[in-house]
Amino acid sequence: MILEKKNMAGRILLLLLCMNVVSFIVNAAPQTCPADLGGKCSEDSEWEGEFFPGIPKIKYEGPSSKSPLVYKWYNAEEEILGKKMKDWLRFSVAFWHTFRGTGADPFGAPTKFWPWEDGTNSIAMAKRRMRANFEFINKLGVDRWCFHDRDIAPDGKTLEETNANLDEVVALAKELQGDKIRLLWGTAQLFMHPRYMHGGATSSEVAVYAYAAAQVKKAMEVTHYLGGENYVFWGGREGYQSLLNTDMERELDHLARFLEAAVAYKKKIGFNGTLLIEPKPQEPTKHQYDWDAATTANFLRKYGLLGEFKLNIECNHATLSGHSCHHDLETARINGLLGNIDANTGDPQIGWDTDQFLTDIGEATMVMLSVIRNGGLAPGGFNFDAKLRRESTDVEDLFIAHISGMDTLARGLRNAAKLIEDGSLAELVRKRYSSFDSEIGAQIEAGKADFEMLEKKAMEWGEPKVASAKQELAEMIFQSAL
Amino acid sequence: MILEKKNMAGRILLLLLCMNVVSFIVNAAPQTCPADLGGKCSEDSEWEGEFFPGIPKIKYEGPSSKSPLVYKWYNAEEEILGKKMKDWLRFSVAFWHTFRGTGADPFGAPTKFWPWEDGTNSIAMAKRRMRANFEFINKLGVDRWCFHDRDIAPDGKTLEETNANLDEVVALAKELQGDKIRLLWGTAQLFMHPRYMHGGATSSEVAVYAYAAAQVKKAMEVTHYLGGENYVFWGGREGYQSLLNTDMERELDHLARFLEAAVAYKKKIGFNGTLLIEPKPQEPTKHQYDWDAATTANFLRKYGLLGEFKLNIECNHATLSGHSCHHDLETARINGLLGNIDANTGDPQIGWDTDQFLTDIGEATMVMLSVIRNGGLAPGGFNFDAKLRRESTDVEDLFIAHISGMDTLARGLRNAAKLIEDGSLAELVRKRYSSFDSEIGAQIEAGKADFEMLEKKAMEWGEPKVASAKQELAEMIFQSAL
Amino acid sequence: MILEKKNMAGRILLLLLCMNVVSFIVNAAPQTCPADLGGKCSEDSEWEGEFFPGIPKIKYEGPSSKSPLVYKWYNAEEEILGKKMKDWLRFSVAFWHTFRGTGADPFGAPTKFWPWEDGTNSIAMAKRRMRANFEFINKLGVDRWCFHDRDIAPDGKTLEETNANLDEVVALAKELQGDKIRLLWGTAQLFMHPRYMHGGATSSEVAVYAYAAAQVKKAMEVTHYLGGENYVFWGGREGYQSLLNTDMERELDHLARFLEAAVAYKKKIGFNGTLLIEPKPQEPTKHQYDWDAATTANFLRKYGLLGEFKLNIECNHATLSGHSCHHDLETARINGLLGNIDANTGDPQIGWDTDQFLTDIGEATMVMLSVIRNGGLAPGGFNFDAKLRRESTDVEDLFIAHISGMDTLARGLRNAAKLIEDGSLAELVRKRYSSFDSEIGAQIEAGKADFEMLEKKAMEWGEPKVASAKQELAEMIFQSAL
Amino acid sequence: MILEKKNMAGRILLLLLCMNVVSFIVNAAPQTCPADLGGKCSEDSEWEGEFFPGIPKIKYEGPSSKSPLVYKWYNAEEEILGKKMKDWLRFSVAFWHTFRGTGADPFGAPTKFWPWEDGTNSIAMAKRRMRANFEFINKLGVDRWCFHDRDIAPDGKTLEETNANLDEVVALAKELQGDKIRLLWGTAQLFMHPRYMHGGATSSEVAVYAYAAAQVKKAMEVTHYLGGENYVFWGGREGYQSLLNTDMERELDHLARFLEAAVAYKKKIGFNGTLLIEPKPQEPTKHQYDWDAATTANFLRKYGLLGEFKLNIECNHATLSGHSCHHDLETARINGLLGNIDANTGDPQIGWDTDQFLTDIGEATMVMLSVIRNGGLAPGGFNFDAKLRRESTDVEDLFIAHISGMDTLARGLRNAAKLIEDGSLAELVRKRYSSFDSEIGAQIEAGKADFEMLEKKAMEWGEPKVASAKQELAEMIFQSAL
Repeated sequence: MILEKKNMAGRILLLLLCMNVVSFIVNAAPQTCPADLGGKCSEDSEWEGEFFPGIPKIKYEGPSSKSPLVYKWYNAEEEILGKKMKDWLRFSVAFWHTFRGTGADPFGAPTKFWPWEDGTNSIAMAKRRMRANFEFINKLGVDRWCFHDRDIAPDGKTLEETNANLDEVVALAKELQGDKIRLLWGTAQLFMHPRYMHGGATSSEVAVYAYAAAQVKKAMEVTHYLGGENYVFWGGREGYQSLLNTDMERELDHLARFLEAAVAYKKKIGFNGTLLIEPKPQEPTKHQYDWDAATTANFLRKYGLLGEFKLNIECNHATLSGHSCHHDLETARINGLLGNIDANTGDPQIGWDTDQFLTDIGEATMVMLSVIRNGGLAPGGFNFDAKLRRESTDVEDLFIAHISGMDTLARGLRNAAKLIEDGSLAELVRKRYSSFDSEIGAQIEAGKADFEMLEKKAMEWGEPKVASAKQELAEMIFQSAL
Repeated sequence: MILEKKNMAGRILLLLLCMNVVSFIVNAAPQTCPADLGGKCSEDSEWEGEFFPGIPKIKYEGPSSKSPLVYKWYNAEEEILGKKMKDWLRFSVAFWHTFRGTGADPFGAPTKFWPWEDGTNSIAMAKRRMRANFEFINKLGVDRWCFHDRDIAPDGKTLEETNANLDEVVALAKELQGDKIRLLWGTAQLFMHPRYMHGGATSSEVAVYAYAAAQVKKAMEVTHYLGGENYVFWGGREGYQSLLNTDMERELDHLARFLEAAVAYKKKIGFNGTLLIEPKPQEPTKHQYDWDAATTANFLRKYGLLGEFKLNIECNHATLSGHSCHHDLETARINGLLGNIDANTGDPQIGWDTDQFLTDIGEATMVMLSVIRNGGLAPGGFNFDAKLRRESTDVEDLFIAHISGMDTLARGLRNAAKLIEDGSLAELVRKRYSSFDSEIGAQIEAGKADFEMLEKKAMEWGEPKVASAKQELAEMIFQSAL
Repeated sequence: MILEKKNMAGRILLLLLCMNVVSFIVNAAPQTCPADLGGKCSEDSEWEGEFFPGIPKIKYEGPSSKSPLVYKWYNAEEEILGKKMKDWLRFSVAFWHTFRGTGADPFGAPTKFWPWEDGTNSIAMAKRRMRANFEFINKLGVDRWCFHDRDIAPDGKTLEETNANLDEVVALAKELQGDKIRLLWGTAQLFMHPRYMHGGATSSEVAVYAYAAAQVKKAMEVTHYLGGENYVFWGGREGYQSLLNTDMERELDHLARFLEAAVAYKKKIGFNGTLLIEPKPQEPTKHQYDWDAATTANFLRKYGLLGEFKLNIECNHATLSGHSCHHDLETARINGLLGNIDANTGDPQIGWDTDQFLTDIGEATMVMLSVIRNGGLAPGGFNFDAKLRRESTDVEDLFIAHISGMDTLARGLRNAAKLIEDGSLAELVRKRYSSFDSEIGAQIEAGKADFEMLEKKAMEWGEPKVASAKQELAEMIFQSAL
Repeated sequence: MILEKKNMAGRILLLLLCMNVVSFIVNAAPQTCPADLGGKCSEDSEWEGEFFPGIPKIKYEGPSSKSPLVYKWYNAEEEILGKKMKDWLRFSVAFWHTFRGTGADPFGAPTKFWPWEDGTNSIAMAKRRMRANFEFINKLGVDRWCFHDRDIAPDGKTLEETNANLDEVVALAKELQGDKIRLLWGTAQLFMHPRYMHGGATSSEVAVYAYAAAQVKKAMEVTHYLGGENYVFWGGREGYQSLLNTDMERELDHLARFLEAAVAYKKKIGFNGTLLIEPKPQEPTKHQYDWDAATTANFLRKYGLLGEFKLNIECNHATLSGHSCHHDLETARINGLLGNIDANTGDPQIGWDTDQFLTDIGEATMVMLSVIRNGGLAPGGFNFDAKLRRESTDVEDLFIAHISGMDTLARGLRNAAKLIEDGSLAELVRKRYSSFDSEIGAQIEAGKADFEMLEKKAMEWGEPKVASAKQELAEMIFQSAL
């Protein structure tokens, strides 16, 4: 305002170029990124052999196994309630956490120094990393993955160059996917770059809105090209830091216009995947517009977008918004919006997103009850939007964490099936509401019981009898299935 | 379930009768409720003279006054931004907190022993209390009041008798209202009686649904009779304690049917007041269906009730749901739903509803900014849903607390007017979004900018320039008005 | 202040007398509390036969049982890690929740109408209730109970009369205890009566301090008489609502003086039980002085009371203070202060004390790990400071809830034993710190390593190697024991 | 564990060298860090002229000024309660937020591109930045600053080299300090580097403990050399992420040994400044050992360190631990431990450290009440541990934010003085406790009132009279001073 800021765009570009050098600066072969930072920093020597040489293909061995590198509960081909476990769970590896997670936090520098990283953000490195990703997926034995555009390919000097970089890496990903591996969803990263500091679709700058549109357009195209089953919108910067300097109404209108244009473009290119919005209450902003499932549903209804979107519910986001994960899943389900689950968990005493792998069996059982009631999640699935703790720095920790998260949900599925087959919990609920399975109940539910008729009934019946809610019994039955 | 529970209804009735004796057991004239609890306990000796003999009519004296029993900022007839302060603020006394608040909390017995209470819940006592209410309102110099049906008149043995009790007290209230005092709103208390432990409209028992309908029917009638400007629904028991024993979808459907019937009945009796829903996230239940403004808006849209209801936003409820009060006011406003404000505040470190009188000047200023943007609240207003701390036991504390809350909002109004007249905060916001006041901005806002066009623009424009959000400057301007 | 308040003490007394009539107003034999509230309200007809006629003595049947009224995991006489389950767990029934819990909450009237209650708070009713308590304990098969003085016997008109009432009920309790049942602890209720609204030991009124001292004196005497193993201080009102009107330093000094006097009196009467302080961060006050384990330890150290007290850790209190239950147990243990556990749980999304029965198996396993490390809790134990949900109104719910809580902790004990016997989790931790099992480590731990020596070592060693923390592996091992 | 990690130390070093290039990559003179990233990236061209050319020396103009770049409330030389404002407030600029804050957050890249940054972390750049710091301090008109060792000088390849770098920059700082500017405190950054991921003093690796000791030793030396008035310990990594893999007791013992060694070294080198511990409950770890003031006091007492340390209370840390800022200040003060204040604020709806500049006048008034009661903070002061919002990217925003924070505390000081001079709030509190200003009160406070004597008094006195706490009146008086 007072000091002139010339060359800002140039400086930011420079920053990003330099970040190519630095973001994963370490390197198995020290000579590829010498201390003098010469041009070799971007050189790409071919990686030979396996990325995870000590790790076998992960197999199911059952609960009695003591090995950390086997499944104890997840048996992909086993049938539960008439469907294979892999079809209920449709697990996906999140490229960003697994291959771009650095261990950095607001108070600390990166801690992960994976052997295949050469310290650059070059296209060659991007491709090497993509190969590592597919080896990881194959060894883990899952069939799906997810990515943000900027995770998998580096920025170029211009949007055109950036898009070209993306195309090059995507072509390799397509090849590596082969027949077996599917893209659960793609998405555009509209939160990391400083241009998005005020939002993408809700930025106060029209040029950023346009840039965001261009980026989503491209991300939808490559998602379509890779056979993506869904496309996700997470509005990490679509919110505000302070209402004092924000025109919330105008921003929300812009967001609606943006999503309408996305729907139109999806149809234009023939992409049949589901569009998903991922609610999160806050962080990075003070308040995000897609606060929780109900808030997002209100937005979709207000702007006439209801039929075009479903929700991607993340457990840690649900708990940050003051709900149990189970609640937000049920809210999404009841509104006809449950499309996908970001499988993770938070810490009940922590007020930010910790993105931990879920290991709570009771929670997993409740999650799976919602999924079963929803008839499964397809074409959505369970994406592991979860990361290693900053202090977990062994390559094998990547496997241990995913195995643990998968086994927990598999155990949840087995427990939920047990509860359903046993039937006594469902019966307890059915009986609670059985007074509505009457003639007067039917009239009420059909909207035919007016206040005068109800008053007459109330006077006729006298003081109502009210039964125990039997919550402790319900909890006992629930626990007996764990 | 195992033990037979005969006579339950009889026992509950007995409980309520006994509560007549006890709930405000103290007494200015000890002989009216003798230790042997004989029949005189319900005897009603007429109260003579003033209820608040030491308290003068509260006058405006301006900020330099040191007296606790004057207004320092609220000057009812003074014009601010073209409207009298009393017309912006439309203050209302909440009968329940002021005249039925006992000071009891989950760990403590009542602490308030007002001199006019004779220790009974008789009709005579109800009338005496109503007279105290109107003397209070008159001395305070406000024009409005609010009540729950069960606050103002005691339960009878049957619904018919209860309704008759209510009619008797309401007739007195009508007389005491005279020409000057208005009923801001009435409401039905569907949470205190054990019959409502599973909810009213969302109870699992059909007979409770009917009873609740009958109660709301009557409460709407008396609100109409008293010239009420609004009618409120607060669903304190419309929620769940555990999803394990709850059919949330069925309960929400019942709630919608109930509200539809309320709308139909309102029209039938020619009541023209606004129907208001008051969101609250939780407490007493783990989760209430009207969680916050956005959740309630979603519910109204889903069930086609949008045009029929507005919201009554309570600041302490807003903060318990994870939002600032200002946020929920703006959300209601933007959705066209801001109808009334329950003026109170919570404690930022406390996780339950403390219902304190607002004394934070900055908060009050933000509240008033929303109200001014809304063009005022009429036919809604500011209801003091706020109570004395349990340890504040002097009669004068009732006045001090209301004066403090009123002065705080008046100060907020003055500050907000200063900000608006100064204009620099609004100008800061206008400038932030000025890039949308362009041709391309207009196209976007009209829904005419598709992704292909926007991509072309993005490539043409190159890296966007992004200006500072100037939040600290906005905060400085805001504070300078306080 | 302005209005004269004569007869306040008289009014409060009257209130309490009336409360005798009312607090549990319902009645199995309607004629004992007639609608006209005549003198028979205090009449006590003898209860005949069992209190829980349909409930058998609860037996262990193992996890495959489907009955709600058997133990599936708690097998009292079974040995785990060299000790009987009942000796690890030392379960106790909390008289107040089980026999005085009414189901009332800040928004709702009582919901529990147990058949043995006659609607009075008479001594006769107190005795009948005490008999029900011992039948409950016997049927449940536990050996201990806990009480507040005012739970078990009604207030009289004077302190002398109140003490006499207490003596009469205590004599019966002593008889009913027999050889088998022990009093885990007694305590004085210094929070319910309005006289304690500003605190007991920390009241601003010296007469209240004296009254509280007299009440604790008597409660210690009866605890001693009943062979109590511990005595508890929970300072629900020892805190503040606002710092603006509070002299925190003076209040803390008073609290210390009070506890010193309690220690002196304990020694004088030869009571050998442990004195326990129960931390809780807030509720009912905004801030309680015994916030959490560390805060209470600081208080004890500051005032030289460390050797005289241990802590009673309640899980729900721990989580309200921002810690996991496991954390506060470990903090107490490390400070040599873990004396007793109030076994319950809260709701992770709720900001007040819900006092639910613990049903989370993982949590129970962590609790038991702390208990085992502590070498057990004796002379403390597990007191069920947990209550039925307001909506659970069947007598059998009292049994179901306790069985569920006991089975959960028993399951936790079995899991913890499995983890300890397996040893791999302990080994993981041991290895993490093994670099300190070196000569230099020993020097550091002995306080012999100064900064100069350490700097020399740091320069000699160069950049330290830092191993993975293996948190996900630790979680996997932990879960495999559940 | 499975994959060999050779060369880890080398890789980390490489990372840090590369970070020299990148962390503030932008540049006013684009040619110094060309796009091809050649060697010139570390070249240091001398900065000529002012760093803040458009910003005048900030002057006091009083509340009626409309300029953002003047003081409206802070008038350094003006006397308040017998002391100059500058001596009450002793403001300090935090080097890290102001000169090393990048705007990065967990979801976003840096946004600040200050014109004087050349994109390197070289010593030359470090010196240029130090000159900017002193120009900033001078223009702002404050007299103090604070730093972490690693903020002001870059890491070298070895600890020796790092220390030499530090010495070089510190020599310049000493020169720039001149006679007028003082170092409020220095500290060692033991949280950013990956070597500290498990802690410094509480790391599981003995070599990290030694390294941390060496780093603190050096930081204490340079603090002493610069005439530092205090030295701070903030244990951002001294805590745990999970109790499952942590030996909390051993870690706490190590922390105590470490602080003992620091005390010994302080004495050895003749450093007379105060050692300060800065509590924070969590973030970055799940649980930090210095949770809050009371927890830290307990630690100091347990390990016999009480006389050697005071506390640096940060408002945002206090609120994250569940207390008001005022509470933690009072707790520190009452324990004789209030040494310094990190002046900032958080957002009441946000669960992480937002480090905002305080603009709440009521809060500032309460803070200043504590400071005045403490007789001031000297040799401590107010350090602005506060940062610009990520979206505030103008150089002038640095000034606006500091001016706003300083004016807010100055306004708080003026208000607190008004309250003290008025005296009615203090009188209200004095009167509340006046019953203890009696003979029996004196006996109690002297520890001479035993339970038997108190019981006798209680019986003699009968039911105590309990006065209103007058909280609403206290709030009214408080607000009238704002």
